[in-house]
Amino acid sequence: MSKRQGSEPDGTGLLIHALYNNPLSGKEIEARSFAIIDREAPEHAYSDDQWEIVRRMIHTTADFDLINRVKFSADAIDSGVESLKAGSTIFSDSNMIRSGLSLARLQEVSPRYGRDSLVCYVADDDVALEARKQGLPRSLFAVRKARSMLEGGIAVFGNAPVAVMELNRLIVEEGVRPGLVVAMPVGFVHVVECKEELMSLDVPFIVIEGRRGGSPLAVSVIHALCSVASKRKKEEPMA
Amino acid sequence: MSKRQGSEPDGTGLLIHALYNNPLSGKEIEARSFAIIDREAPEHAYSDDQWEIVRRMIHTTADFDLINRVKFSADAIDSGVESLKAGSTIFSDSNMIRSGLSLARLQEVSPRYGRDSLVCYVADDDVALEARKQGLPRSLFAVRKARSMLEGGIAVFGNAPVAVMELNRLIVEEGVRPGLVVAMPVGFVHVVECKEELMSLDVPFIVIEGRRGGSPLAVSVIHALCSVASKRKKEEPMA
Repeated sequence: MSKRQGSEPDGTGLLIHALYNNPLSGKEIEARSFAIIDREAPEHAYSDDQWEIVRRMIHTTADFDLINRVKFSADAIDSGVESLKAGSTIFSDSNMIRSGLSLARLQEVSPRYGRDSLVCYVADDDVALEARKQGLPRSLFAVRKARSMLEGGIAVFGNAPVAVMELNRLIVEEGVRPGLVVAMPVGFVHVVECKEELMSLDVPFIVIEGRRGGSPLAVSVIHALCSVASKRKKEEPMA
Repeated sequence: MSKRQGSEPDGTGLLIHALYNNPLSGKEIEARSFAIIDREAPEHAYSDDQWEIVRRMIHTTADFDLINRVKFSADAIDSGVESLKAGSTIFSDSNMIRSGLSLARLQEVSPRYGRDSLVCYVADDDVALEARKQGLPRSLFAVRKARSMLEGGIAVFGNAPVAVMELNRLIVEEGVRPGLVVAMPVGFVHVVECKEELMSLDVPFIVIEGRRGGSPLAVSVIHALCSVASKRKKEEPMA
């Protein structure tokens, strides 16, 4: 049987058939991706643990420009890992982050994690009402609503600079101290400044300098911290 | 009362207080962001409708490099808008996309939209089982499960190149014809090729060439198409 030859592929030449013939699982594809990143990455000064985080962020965006723009406070990874091991509440500024976080990965680090450990209030009615009343973004009131959980909790921002600004206020004026702040809002208004303000505070942080950010990046940081936590667990002497 | 002067901001100098004093709503901040993008954007050859899409993608990522890498088939926007007006099912390859899509915006275009119009099967048990059995990624079987909805539906990919590859096969071998394919998987393995293969097919598409992509970008395309649809509605003569 002859097959049509043309610029539009017929069935025989389709990419998916090559994969059917030589199956690769999601895990195997991920391993290949990490190998490509390690091969192509330019020089950097990150520690092994930091590189674990940044490499996963590159995996998530295919953006090598993140290198050297991702900033860690000295205590960020240790404090983040300890917070995860304690099963600390994870507050996020977008429901995309909440839905992107893998409960399975979190539960490998702490069996305390459940759906209720992941909170996002930005779509709540009371938050929307207050925002309308005051003519301010909803994300600000979502942070305020989460105040008690932010103490010792993990705050993850991939969207709203105003949420980071309100957290900065809670840290400075009300003495709130999160276990880790992942600050990766994205955009053009307030974004650069809110990150600089956060980095001037004495709090564990992982931040992308500048305008870049996004929910998948914020999620990838938490998942990479889970990997670091699991690796450390394996290296611990048996009790 | 004197205030402490130092490198760490005290309450008075915090960014959020400037915002409290001069409130800006989320909508106002968005308008400012779009103005900045229009001001800073380099020359491009996009039509007004296409720029509406690309501008929102830049808003989502702060990445001007997207310009000229976002490719539209000639019929992409018209077919996408018609599909939205018909309330067509939106299939996505990640739950982050499903949770990022705004039902309110979709319902402005078609009152038929509801939570059930947004489908994602990647976390389904039967999909996971099949993936394990065959040693292939789950996203492939999620697409196969959605076969009947993809006919005339809107397919939105921000994650899994293998999902795009399987859709390409359904288009070529089984004659499935979606109303629009938004193909923005991201990464290092299969990503560039699956997009090139899709762009060789006779199907309405919006694609980011190369390795870049991501769920928020895919979501922003759908939201921008909603804006285009609403704008066209206003310009229509009254019935």
